[in-house]
Amino acid sequence: MESIGKTAILYALADGESETEIRAAALKKGYALIKGKVGSMNTEKIFAAVETAAQREGLIRKDYYRDTHALYHATLDAFVGICRGQLGLGNMLRTVGLIFTVVRGPRTTEQVEDGEWLAVVLYGMIGAPVKGSEHETIGLGLNHL
Amino acid sequence: MESIGKTAILYALADGESETEIRAAALKKGYALIKGKVGSMNTEKIFAAVETAAQREGLIRKDYYRDTHALYHATLDAFVGICRGQLGLGNMLRTVGLIFTVVRGPRTTEQVEDGEWLAVVLYGMIGAPVKGSEHETIGLGLNHL
Amino acid sequence: MESIGKTAILYALADGESETEIRAAALKKGYALIKGKVGSMNTEKIFAAVETAAQREGLIRKDYYRDTHALYHATLDAFVGICRGQLGLGNMLRTVGLIFTVVRGPRTTEQVEDGEWLAVVLYGMIGAPVKGSEHETIGLGLNHL
Amino acid sequence: MESIGKTAILYALADGESETEIRAAALKKGYALIKGKVGSMNTEKIFAAVETAAQREGLIRKDYYRDTHALYHATLDAFVGICRGQLGLGNMLRTVGLIFTVVRGPRTTEQVEDGEWLAVVLYGMIGAPVKGSEHETIGLGLNHL
Amino acid sequence: MESIGKTAILYALADGESETEIRAAALKKGYALIKGKVGSMNTEKIFAAVETAAQREGLIRKDYYRDTHALYHATLDAFVGICRGQLGLGNMLRTVGLIFTVVRGPRTTEQVEDGEWLAVVLYGMIGAPVKGSEHETIGLGLNHL
Amino acid sequence: MESIGKTAILYALADGESETEIRAAALKKGYALIKGKVGSMNTEKIFAAVETAAQREGLIRKDYYRDTHALYHATLDAFVGICRGQLGLGNMLRTVGLIFTVVRGPRTTEQVEDGEWLAVVLYGMIGAPVKGSEHETIGLGLNHL
Repeated sequence: MESIGKTAILYALADGESETEIRAAALKKGYALIKGKVGSMNTEKIFAAVETAAQREGLIRKDYYRDTHALYHATLDAFVGICRGQLGLGNMLRTVGLIFTVVRGPRTTEQVEDGEWLAVVLYGMIGAPVKGSEHETIGLGLNHL
Repeated sequence: MESIGKTAILYALADGESETEIRAAALKKGYALIKGKVGSMNTEKIFAAVETAAQREGLIRKDYYRDTHALYHATLDAFVGICRGQLGLGNMLRTVGLIFTVVRGPRTTEQVEDGEWLAVVLYGMIGAPVKGSEHETIGLGLNHL
Repeated sequence: MESIGKTAILYALADGESETEIRAAALKKGYALIKGKVGSMNTEKIFAAVETAAQREGLIRKDYYRDTHALYHATLDAFVGICRGQLGLGNMLRTVGLIFTVVRGPRTTEQVEDGEWLAVVLYGMIGAPVKGSEHETIGLGLNHL
Repeated sequence: MESIGKTAILYALADGESETEIRAAALKKGYALIKGKVGSMNTEKIFAAVETAAQREGLIRKDYYRDTHALYHATLDAFVGICRGQLGLGNMLRTVGLIFTVVRGPRTTEQVEDGEWLAVVLYGMIGAPVKGSEHETIGLGLNHL
Repeated sequence: MESIGKTAILYALADGESETEIRAAALKKGYALIKGKVGSMNTEKIFAAVETAAQREGLIRKDYYRDTHALYHATLDAFVGICRGQLGLGNMLRTVGLIFTVVRGPRTTEQVEDGEWLAVVLYGMIGAPVKGSEHETIGLGLNHL
Repeated sequence: MESIGKTAILYALADGESETEIRAAALKKGYALIKGKVGSMNTEKIFAAVETAAQREGLIRKDYYRDTHALYHATLDAFVGICRGQLGLGNMLRTVGLIFTVVRGPRTTEQVEDGEWLAVVLYGMIGAPVKGSEHETIGLGLNHL
């Protein structure tokens, strides 16, 4: 858990005690991190859910475009990983149920002089809008803050 | 570790004792899984490394096109996640150092009647061909076998 | 007409007596095949029309995700051919009037040991939502079932 | 200002006296040119605004598909430049405020024997639907008429 | 066989007597058409083979950029259909064996007043560089000349 | 010339006295800017030329990954505009002759509190590797530094 991307991925996949431990260890090493859920056929809701949570929890400053810009592109990169090639959900008759994590901090704990970065992970299920007709998907986006 | 994608992701990120535990638990639940490394500026080497390892370790049958086809598209999907939008490495002046995992088995341990699937994870560093000028990236591809 | 893709293409382009002949010859060689029409500015309707017809006519099993997954990606591949680069219809101010065919069977009549595949063809007109302001387009997607 | 693309770009960026001068010089050299504005989260409105203006001002002939087809693809190419990789506006939680120019004439004033071409420029701001949370973007599409 | 795209598709798929008939019927209706073969892992060879053949057989004028430009984009559109999403062959560890056809003439035999168009079809096999590890693929590109 | 993108575009298009004036005015307003040339069928040479020039002229700090990362993505965005949809040059049998500019400074002269940004413009000719068989193209990428 010494790098920002790995922290964001493991935090997204964990639950229960393991989630609490990852969070505590990350905070101790100087990372700020949040976790949320979003499910939708509307792609814009993914972007909105991540941005709203990151602003509310103070991971990025509101009304400060540099932060919004950094987060937006990290989220877009993660979303491309989720879609694997052709961007779209409802317009391609598919839906997602995702957990998202956002982590702010150094690229690795040995690169603190490099300043702060943002990592966004989207992880969950993608598939037809029919219960069970779905499989896992993940996306990770990184950007300098 | 009850789903194929999560298994492939956690196995890719783990090392040491934790890696051994994930492997043992996955095998017990009916998953076959392999792990390897590949670093290159040539995109085709990623595909070749994954395919060669999967055939050698018996995760897919050699000379059986259905298996090759399933693995190829899972690898391509994972690679799209790595590249986040524009496919390419050396031609875009960037390189990768990746760990890859391939897992074969049910989508989840509760969906064995759905037959076997393949999950490919690529995880590692992407960046300029200069030491340290890089950040993490991950891609996951799933396909029915 | 000894391969699945050619069968799907020729069946999509044929009408009248020729269509009946292609269908009869394909059935005799072990192919199952259907044909339908869909016109829309909403991309999801293309996916829905193909899936609904394929399930209703028994080319794929309903409530069996492997089949749905195989058909979905074959349809997506065909749709990419229709759009040629940028996925979209109404959002790019264009519309389509398409014939679709779905064929299930061996890749070629000499490769029956390779199991069953699906071929989806979309063929028709793409253009501005103005009568006559359009030209032909085709897409073919193949996937192992 | 001896080439069609440069003319379209400079005309899009200019205002006041400079705009009038560019227009006059371009007309003298045999170019027809128009300028308009469009702001939207709906991508199709960009296409509609450019087409409607070009037809109304006589840069392309209405009900003549070759002209519509040439303009459509020039506009699409310009739009790809605006979006830089992933086509979309509102579905990606972003919006644009654009000036567009369309220029008809020779590729360069020294290549009149090559017939008429169309250049479309989209220039303006892209960003979050929040005042000030945006940055500049440009796209240029060229096509033979 | 009254439209340019259908003519190009059927001519690509036909052989023997049927090929001769399609050709004769198309010529009688005012279409010029050629057919060739190209197999490669290098994407540029597909473009070169089509352009060289079309120039040599007089379907487009050499040293006349409008014609080259029209053919180039028709070929690119057909190639996108072949690749279905991610442009590339050898760099994605895959190869093609293709038949190509180029047809010049009206969009349909009832739209001669609309001038001449070009249709490019690429049809054949795409797959791993291993005999038999491949499946069919088709792409069609149209452009006004 | 009060915004970073417009400055980069106009500086790329200007020559002679006009170029000198744009440069002087931009420097006075707090922008740092450079200009160079690159022509190639190899896409990586575009990235290398821009990066090398920007580092040599001090627009970004060498061995400082945040700067390299910001410039890389701005260059990639500009390159996407140049390619309009399908990334590639020689592999698609086309070549470019480009002027590039890089500008560092505030998004606009009224947004200095928002910190420094980078703008990359690529402008020039794209076409077949045959003299005169080419047309103009432009791309602009912006990123926060």
